Amino acid sequence: MIPRYSTPEMDAVWSDPVRFGRWLEVELLATEGHAEAGVVPAQAAAICRANAPVSDEAFVQKIHEREQITDHDVAAFVDVVQDAINDPAGSWIHYGLTSSDVGDTALCWAMRDAADLMIEAATDLLATLVRMAREHADTVMIGRTHGIHAEPTTFGAKVALWALQVDRDRARLRAARDAVAVMKLSGAVGTYSNIPPEVEAFVGDKLGLTPVPATQVVARDRHSEFLYACASIGATCELMAVELRHLQRTEVREVQEGFKPGQKGSSAMPHKRNPISAETISGLSRVLRSNLLAGLQDVALWHERDISHSSVERVILPDSSQLAYYVMRRLKRLLDGLVVMPERMQANLDASYGLVFSQPVLLSLVQSGKTRDEAYRIVQRNAMRAWDEGLDFRTLLEADDEVDNSVLDDAFDLRRSLSNLNIVFAQLDGLE
Amino acid sequence: MIPRYSTPEMDAVWSDPVRFGRWLEVELLATEGHAEAGVVPAQAAAICRANAPVSDEAFVQKIHEREQITDHDVAAFVDVVQDAINDPAGSWIHYGLTSSDVGDTALCWAMRDAADLMIEAATDLLATLVRMAREHADTVMIGRTHGIHAEPTTFGAKVALWALQVDRDRARLRAARDAVAVMKLSGAVGTYSNIPPEVEAFVGDKLGLTPVPATQVVARDRHSEFLYACASIGATCELMAVELRHLQRTEVREVQEGFKPGQKGSSAMPHKRNPISAETISGLSRVLRSNLLAGLQDVALWHERDISHSSVERVILPDSSQLAYYVMRRLKRLLDGLVVMPERMQANLDASYGLVFSQPVLLSLVQSGKTRDEAYRIVQRNAMRAWDEGLDFRTLLEADDEVDNSVLDDAFDLRRSLSNLNIVFAQLDGLE
Amino acid sequence: MIPRYSTPEMDAVWSDPVRFGRWLEVELLATEGHAEAGVVPAQAAAICRANAPVSDEAFVQKIHEREQITDHDVAAFVDVVQDAINDPAGSWIHYGLTSSDVGDTALCWAMRDAADLMIEAATDLLATLVRMAREHADTVMIGRTHGIHAEPTTFGAKVALWALQVDRDRARLRAARDAVAVMKLSGAVGTYSNIPPEVEAFVGDKLGLTPVPATQVVARDRHSEFLYACASIGATCELMAVELRHLQRTEVREVQEGFKPGQKGSSAMPHKRNPISAETISGLSRVLRSNLLAGLQDVALWHERDISHSSVERVILPDSSQLAYYVMRRLKRLLDGLVVMPERMQANLDASYGLVFSQPVLLSLVQSGKTRDEAYRIVQRNAMRAWDEGLDFRTLLEADDEVDNSVLDDAFDLRRSLSNLNIVFAQLDGLE
Amino acid sequence: MIPRYSTPEMDAVWSDPVRFGRWLEVELLATEGHAEAGVVPAQAAAICRANAPVSDEAFVQKIHEREQITDHDVAAFVDVVQDAINDPAGSWIHYGLTSSDVGDTALCWAMRDAADLMIEAATDLLATLVRMAREHADTVMIGRTHGIHAEPTTFGAKVALWALQVDRDRARLRAARDAVAVMKLSGAVGTYSNIPPEVEAFVGDKLGLTPVPATQVVARDRHSEFLYACASIGATCELMAVELRHLQRTEVREVQEGFKPGQKGSSAMPHKRNPISAETISGLSRVLRSNLLAGLQDVALWHERDISHSSVERVILPDSSQLAYYVMRRLKRLLDGLVVMPERMQANLDASYGLVFSQPVLLSLVQSGKTRDEAYRIVQRNAMRAWDEGLDFRTLLEADDEVDNSVLDDAFDLRRSLSNLNIVFAQLDGLE
Repeated sequence: MIPRYSTPEMDAVWSDPVRFGRWLEVELLATEGHAEAGVVPAQAAAICRANAPVSDEAFVQKIHEREQITDHDVAAFVDVVQDAINDPAGSWIHYGLTSSDVGDTALCWAMRDAADLMIEAATDLLATLVRMAREHADTVMIGRTHGIHAEPTTFGAKVALWALQVDRDRARLRAARDAVAVMKLSGAVGTYSNIPPEVEAFVGDKLGLTPVPATQVVARDRHSEFLYACASIGATCELMAVELRHLQRTEVREVQEGFKPGQKGSSAMPHKRNPISAETISGLSRVLRSNLLAGLQDVALWHERDISHSSVERVILPDSSQLAYYVMRRLKRLLDGLVVMPERMQANLDASYGLVFSQPVLLSLVQSGKTRDEAYRIVQRNAMRAWDEGLDFRTLLEADDEVDNSVLDDAFDLRRSLSNLNIVFAQLDGLE
Repeated sequence: MIPRYSTPEMDAVWSDPVRFGRWLEVELLATEGHAEAGVVPAQAAAICRANAPVSDEAFVQKIHEREQITDHDVAAFVDVVQDAINDPAGSWIHYGLTSSDVGDTALCWAMRDAADLMIEAATDLLATLVRMAREHADTVMIGRTHGIHAEPTTFGAKVALWALQVDRDRARLRAARDAVAVMKLSGAVGTYSNIPPEVEAFVGDKLGLTPVPATQVVARDRHSEFLYACASIGATCELMAVELRHLQRTEVREVQEGFKPGQKGSSAMPHKRNPISAETISGLSRVLRSNLLAGLQDVALWHERDISHSSVERVILPDSSQLAYYVMRRLKRLLDGLVVMPERMQANLDASYGLVFSQPVLLSLVQSGKTRDEAYRIVQRNAMRAWDEGLDFRTLLEADDEVDNSVLDDAFDLRRSLSNLNIVFAQLDGLE
Repeated sequence: MIPRYSTPEMDAVWSDPVRFGRWLEVELLATEGHAEAGVVPAQAAAICRANAPVSDEAFVQKIHEREQITDHDVAAFVDVVQDAINDPAGSWIHYGLTSSDVGDTALCWAMRDAADLMIEAATDLLATLVRMAREHADTVMIGRTHGIHAEPTTFGAKVALWALQVDRDRARLRAARDAVAVMKLSGAVGTYSNIPPEVEAFVGDKLGLTPVPATQVVARDRHSEFLYACASIGATCELMAVELRHLQRTEVREVQEGFKPGQKGSSAMPHKRNPISAETISGLSRVLRSNLLAGLQDVALWHERDISHSSVERVILPDSSQLAYYVMRRLKRLLDGLVVMPERMQANLDASYGLVFSQPVLLSLVQSGKTRDEAYRIVQRNAMRAWDEGLDFRTLLEADDEVDNSVLDDAFDLRRSLSNLNIVFAQLDGLE
Repeated sequence: MIPRYSTPEMDAVWSDPVRFGRWLEVELLATEGHAEAGVVPAQAAAICRANAPVSDEAFVQKIHEREQITDHDVAAFVDVVQDAINDPAGSWIHYGLTSSDVGDTALCWAMRDAADLMIEAATDLLATLVRMAREHADTVMIGRTHGIHAEPTTFGAKVALWALQVDRDRARLRAARDAVAVMKLSGAVGTYSNIPPEVEAFVGDKLGLTPVPATQVVARDRHSEFLYACASIGATCELMAVELRHLQRTEVREVQEGFKPGQKGSSAMPHKRNPISAETISGLSRVLRSNLLAGLQDVALWHERDISHSSVERVILPDSSQLAYYVMRRLKRLLDGLVVMPERMQANLDASYGLVFSQPVLLSLVQSGKTRDEAYRIVQRNAMRAWDEGLDFRTLLEADDEVDNSVLDDAFDLRRSLSNLNIVFAQLDGLE
């Protein structure tokens, strides 16, 4: 991922030194596991551990240089590690393993860590949303369907639904985490032909990854689930971002992205505080779902594995991790700084002449004894006039002889119409 | 979905009469729920139920005709239902509801039923796979990586991995089922402004669907999860289908699709029993994953809903249900009729001169006291000769003075190299 | 495609009777071509033509029944045709051909016809757009970036850009048409092993399809290009649909979808004329681009063909044709009935206090001799005040001692700022 | 794109110094264009040009630092440039322009250059393919459909079809190049409100980019076409890569990827020369088509532009350029080093007992006077026996009393059956 959309936290999961560090740890643990199993001399395993190189940029560089010759990254890595150990014991490194035992286990490990970071980001985002939802539980605004005024709701209710959706996505991230928190050290075609299963169990135990039956590699439905979880939280963030963009348009202007000091909006055009964070989040969600598509095409590998998935994953697994994490972090920042303008919400609500109350008026008239047809005729007559002439709907109804004015208070009572929203807010309890 | 890839079972979930039947039931239950809540006279609700039309083709036809005028399907539906009830009580139909209360609840209901069918198909497929895995636990074949002979495995082990993957997809289907087994009767923007929450609870209880906070509609991350589960099982079926296609190619010919009596293969070309079922499954998995992409773009609806998702879902929700179910059913049929040819598997295994045992030979030589370098040199020398001259690897090793022949039995012992596969098979217990 | 989004014109391209009618014509022409080449007796070819069945529903039904036995659609078709011809001459039907010679040629023929319909729809849509663009060349409205007021433009200019984009998509449709207007009668692996190339040339000539080198089938990059052209025009229609949805939101309300008489909007909520046509178009564009993805996965067929593409294409080629055609037709209808409200456009333009002229004011001040810094300071001072206090920007500037009022007329002159748009409109000449 | 799949040539199109260098050149040309138009003093434009900074890493660094404050990349860039020019003339930089005038023109410029590189790579790949096709025009091999032996063809014919497909993709790349070789300097909403169209024309002329009507930005159907062309050549390369993987499998082994000296295959397993280049190409084609999906979602920007496309394009435009170029280059290398094994092709052809000649035998028997039914019966009888008992088909036919042996030479004559392939090869003329 380009630096612009990368974070130090996620870089630390996917960087080359970390990646090769994971490989090295898998190799060392496998050697120790072999020692436990009595295959490798305990002393040799200890020497390997003691002499093992640090996985830093210089180490990475050596592997890249070596790979120019071997054209095989694990082979290059093993060569460099054995060189560094610089002892006959080093020849036990990679004993009984196939390249994918190392690489695929390390990849799962990285995905698991990436998932943990994403779960943390989702939890933080959720906390912001729950706080905002409660803060704005009574901030009345117009609800819109098809972009058109429908019925009143509250900003808090809107945000509460977002919170519930993020919570569902967090559950998906957790499921994905479990799906990828696995490993395999079972050899070239998964038969443990040259390695005792105890070695796999030993390494899995140390790394907190569950050993699973595998071909040469772990099955790719797991990686797809990881990408799906990234795409799903991406789509949820897009939902919020699109809403925030709508609410920021000049004619609506109910919220505003906070500006950081010094940020170049246009002081010559002070209305032009562009919702660029929300737009960026909208865009990146497209990349997240496209990556899922590529990932799903990696599932049907040939026989006990072909390596076509590898090039795809080198690109999209870090990218989707970075982007999903980034959009959550950036959205949280956006929300934390969001300026909410209740007075603009009220003004917009008022701008459709009270017509958004036409359904409660209708139902009230029916409850007051009119037939549905009569009630409908009355509402329609006044609604059309309000709309066509730009007059206040309630004022017209009050002047209408057929209307029993005593029902109007109830029909136009916002508190009544929103009183059931407590059901929604109740679901936020215990979410954080 | 075109008839070719539709099944009667899934048609019965998505057909127009069933769909409108669900709408009708939601309306009737809502009226009854309102009666319970004391809003609608109990007698009126009873009349609605008693006089309600049957949702058959004629009913569907009337709605379609009416929709030509209203340009709104729920409005047309309500008109036709009220006509059919033919009693003033009928005016209570749709009381306090918004169109989406009905349509979206019914859609979730359909998806839930579709998910149930898919879970059943996955379970049936799983049973076949577990049976086959056990049946072929000792059917030795070559494991291939990159399409190249790697190490021996068994056909049973291959199938066992498929079973485990189908089991994971079944879990995804179950999660998706729970995600969509929800409903909402909370009005135009989800505030219950004109409907008591008890009505929603009443209807949800009767339908076995959980009421959830919503905007005008249920959040679309749920529908995406449904489509993801379809795409994932599709990819898993593709994995198996691609493998079966590989194993059927003329040069490999280790399995064969069963032919039904009378099926037109080519008797003039008896070798030409084409794996068309497997190819069809491969193809349809592409549609399944593409539909997911469309579904993920439906998540970010505007404000309290825009209706852009609706056209998409009318196409892809039935289609993905049909296809996911169809591919599982067809794959099960394919597997149930599959001809497995162990003698061809053995012949292919033998065709690479025993070179697939080079790693155990290497390790055995090390264990017998050679240094790794010596061992490697010996193996390499004989392996190259075996390959270049088409000679049997073991015969060459036996003739090599540097080789202690006593280690060869073990190195070339298939039973030894496959003995750890019991770990894989143990995971099948309790799967069905 | 479901009936809701199908049109009679496109149904007539893809229906079963038409499809089998194409197959039949290919078979008859191939027999006649063989007669020309001296392989088949001329008399036999004449009898085949004379006795050939009509491809109607009954014919289709017979083929479907026969396919239950053969499990192969072309074989079933040939059986039924030969039965119908009911003469020994009938045995020349399908002489030297492979199934795909018939099916793939007929498929290209259908795509060519579908492309022709789409080109026609694009041309009609273009005519509407050009007319609207010219009609509204002087209908001033605010241009918006990021949803925020930027600078004035005209509704005609907006529509003119749409027209130019549709014209580009029409060119893509034409290129796609040429890509698929091909055919092949070159046998099982494209070697013309059992058929003289003259037969292919004869049939291609009659059908207006260009013979191309092929494997068993025509290369699938062609079909992908067809799907790309569908997806691209879909995205363009989405662009327009999204804009129309934005312009219809309650707060903006600059245009309105026409209602057909009797259409059920809500007369109780007269403001609620929902942009459902535009929303439907938005949705269907998602399906169009997803289908492209499936199509691109059909390119890499195995060897001289595998049949995995076939199931995909049975679904997505008719679907994408139907949907691309449908969205163009529906959008044209929407545009033809669109209510444009110039007074609302003016009102919105005025609502940002004239701040959208801040850049010409800045440049005018510079031209009048201020340094950029001075000019910027003046503009900024007045702009911030206009925005914060809701005052008219020009009035403030006029009252500012540092401003030479003589430059303001020009800076706030809409006609000046829009005078260069003639460049855009000039590009519409000759488009229709 | 990660370094592994990047090339220096394509890096040189997309690197930060090059990117900012393009921005700088657009700014300088715009200033000079304004000077031509009499808006900017000629002297000032000359000073800007003379004092303009070099776009190197230090320059990039300064912009990034500045952007930390402005949160706007173009604003940061202009600040740094004006600083560098260090003369009052520098204040004319960016005169009358909007950020997108610079950024979007420069982006088109980069895409144009990227397209040129891709066209060059396609041309080079085509040359290799044409050479190989001709070289192997008579290299007979079995043609396979459904993975099953069908009829003989030649390796040259297979490659010739690839060449023709690459030629079509090159045409798509050229069309895409023309689609993106455009620019705009028409201001905030494309109205040329503050800039004379002559300036746009001046800059376009200097850069070889065609000025086009635009909103704030160039329409994104153009960028989608660019991504489509990348995805299409990707799919074509995948087609070849998948074929090469099939042909390399142990049982088929008709071709082999060349190994570079020192490359770590396994000398202990000399048969294990894995087709990793082909597998890598297969994988990367998935990323290419997924990126197209993201790109198509960028078309429907809001109003005169929203910036949601920008984040997407920062990732996928360089990535798709890099990958499309990389796969072509790597595939060419693969093909240049490919080891073709005609003797293995012959051996495989022979392995299906000559049954692949059953159709010419059938047709020959008919031509020799048998009825189709008789002929079919004879062929079937012998074919079944050949297959079931593993006997040579021709030998059986020769021993069959009903067969006129004189027709067999012709029926089994490979040269005859392949003689029409000259039609295919003729199409290669003039391709390179």
